[in-house]
Amino acid sequence: MIYLDSNATTRPHPEVVAAILPFLSEFWHNPSSGYRAAKRVRAAIDEARGRVAALIGAEPSEIVFSGCGTEANNMALRWLARWMGADTGHFITSAIEHSAVLRPAEALEADGCGVERCGVDAAGRLDLDAFRSACGAARDAGGGFASVMWANNETGVLQPIAEACEAAKECGLAFHTDAIQAVGKVPVNVRETPVDFLSVSAHKFHGPKGVGALYVRGGTRFEPMIRGGGQEAGRRSGTENVPGIVGMGMAAELMRRQLEADGHAAVRAMRDEFEEALLARIEGTRVNGDRDRRLPGTSHISVEGCEAAGLLILLDEAGIQCSAGSACMTGKQRPSHVQIAMGIPPDRAKSSLRFGFSTFNRPGDVGAAVEALDKAVKKLRSVQGPPGMGPVEVRTL
Amino acid sequence: MIYLDSNATTRPHPEVVAAILPFLSEFWHNPSSGYRAAKRVRAAIDEARGRVAALIGAEPSEIVFSGCGTEANNMALRWLARWMGADTGHFITSAIEHSAVLRPAEALEADGCGVERCGVDAAGRLDLDAFRSACGAARDAGGGFASVMWANNETGVLQPIAEACEAAKECGLAFHTDAIQAVGKVPVNVRETPVDFLSVSAHKFHGPKGVGALYVRGGTRFEPMIRGGGQEAGRRSGTENVPGIVGMGMAAELMRRQLEADGHAAVRAMRDEFEEALLARIEGTRVNGDRDRRLPGTSHISVEGCEAAGLLILLDEAGIQCSAGSACMTGKQRPSHVQIAMGIPPDRAKSSLRFGFSTFNRPGDVGAAVEALDKAVKKLRSVQGPPGMGPVEVRTL
Repeated sequence: MIYLDSNATTRPHPEVVAAILPFLSEFWHNPSSGYRAAKRVRAAIDEARGRVAALIGAEPSEIVFSGCGTEANNMALRWLARWMGADTGHFITSAIEHSAVLRPAEALEADGCGVERCGVDAAGRLDLDAFRSACGAARDAGGGFASVMWANNETGVLQPIAEACEAAKECGLAFHTDAIQAVGKVPVNVRETPVDFLSVSAHKFHGPKGVGALYVRGGTRFEPMIRGGGQEAGRRSGTENVPGIVGMGMAAELMRRQLEADGHAAVRAMRDEFEEALLARIEGTRVNGDRDRRLPGTSHISVEGCEAAGLLILLDEAGIQCSAGSACMTGKQRPSHVQIAMGIPPDRAKSSLRFGFSTFNRPGDVGAAVEALDKAVKKLRSVQGPPGMGPVEVRTL
Repeated sequence: MIYLDSNATTRPHPEVVAAILPFLSEFWHNPSSGYRAAKRVRAAIDEARGRVAALIGAEPSEIVFSGCGTEANNMALRWLARWMGADTGHFITSAIEHSAVLRPAEALEADGCGVERCGVDAAGRLDLDAFRSACGAARDAGGGFASVMWANNETGVLQPIAEACEAAKECGLAFHTDAIQAVGKVPVNVRETPVDFLSVSAHKFHGPKGVGALYVRGGTRFEPMIRGGGQEAGRRSGTENVPGIVGMGMAAELMRRQLEADGHAAVRAMRDEFEEALLARIEGTRVNGDRDRRLPGTSHISVEGCEAAGLLILLDEAGIQCSAGSACMTGKQRPSHVQIAMGIPPDRAKSSLRFGFSTFNRPGDVGAAVEALDKAVKKLRSVQGPPGMGPVEVRTL
């Protein structure tokens, strides 16, 4: 099998698995206990916290470990809504956020919070004018907060976070970013881009599932969503997921080294080669989203005249694992909200596939994937009939 | 080292660790993905859900996996407060709950929810008359909800859950129980004791840290705390902690078998032998809490004239790991709220130790622990002077 769905989840790195094991079998003590064995466990959490902090340019004390990235988003947004007064505040976000931001936004809206979802251009990048205008309106209406994702989970398109953060701050709004797809893949530095809150998920960068983190800028007011024993300096109670945290720390360390070494150049090269070959070989294909300002491993492709559902079955049979949109959307038949926001017509949206390359792909995967996709497209078109038009002009949207 | 702190956390069972490993190294796909490899991961979650359900007599669909037991408590209480109207509702609980219930209760109180904390008797059991009266008052004031722990985390004392649940229901109150210390150790069956919500934590019964579950009775209204991709049937979003869930399932299966086989008879025998030997050998010791209605492995001991802090250091040096109260309380100098509620004087409360036996203890551990405690007590008393009185009468409190 060739795994090309690394935006859905990533294979835990063998060094991550190796780092986890002793904390299941040997160092399993409660880190809050007083005896020496427990202090060794506590030290491992401290080391992991430092590694996650280093990956995003934060201080260790600014990292709050959580049960997943979705929890990190929820704890940030709930607190911000409470801080700002949920029923009077204003929440500015984008139309292309992950459901882990959109669903909490709907819940806040139901409680009376004004929610503004700013659009994106055809390349999938936030409409900064609309965003600035919404921030200004929120300021004039009494304040609020904003959240924009660092990179989109379907297209991989990087958002103008520095500009959005600056615009929000100029209007006195607190700023959160869902950086779950970005961290570990591209440079993310909270000193250079002074966001107030930032969400991370370990399993998106070769760490284990079941652990994430929320960056909370030092000095920022914060109250917890989960209360109890006071772990994570009172910001997220519950006995720490020690194996998960240690694994996340190791994954962060490996990603930091790789980013510093070559910025995932090999992953980017495979992805680019894949797109070139695919566009050249299979007519009626195009790449969606900004091709320059994008995660190194993500490729979002439309295949004219082929429904994604059929392609996915044929690709799976041929040993290629990829997806249509996000994993969370699998099985849902409505076209992706991200593509709708980009102005992609529903027909093309339903013919879109997402490929996600990672450090575990090999150059040979590229040819195999293009070959399999070519066969699948031919098979589906032979059943469904050829595309209505000739080859679609390939543009950088 | 001899580990006698199994109320703080437990050693993951080797079969649990073995069950987890393939889900880190091989079956790491996102269970929401569409390809066949992901469906195998989904099936493993389903199996684990069935095993956790079987341990407490529930249907698999009634199990919502969470990031920890504390999260399960928080999601139940937050929802119940919201359901009942947090600023007008009434929350009846006990004075001896874990901080994972007491801290959320304080947050609800700050939001205007009336909170009644019912006391316990000298044996550490809920005052049912006070509880019934509080439930009646809540009913008369417009309704509310109640939460009583199944077993106390410091003393191991089992609470009259069937009676409390019945009393709450008679007054029309929804009923939650924090069963984190009880599940896996004593029979817990939600068909026999019809609670509406019940919290579980894997690491308390030889599962991994970082995973828990909330039982939500079928047909009970419920809205999530963490919103997003719609995992757990929309009740707790976030990519599933697959290794953790699989490990929790295996631990549940092992505990179910052991409970059915002998109800942890070996653990109970070690604990009882430990208490007998200790009371006979070390003067000024006593067992706190109801000795009959108690978890099989827990022993809460007071040692007259010896501060727990000093004993813990000496015991750790002698290779015995135990605690004073809960792990979450470690390092905090105030006497335990549980002991205060039981009417234990502050001096004796500060001289209390908790020992937690598990299936991984061996009969030889008993003698070694008593020997080490005897030496530690002698050493401390030689420094601090002998206890003010002669041997304290040993009573079943």
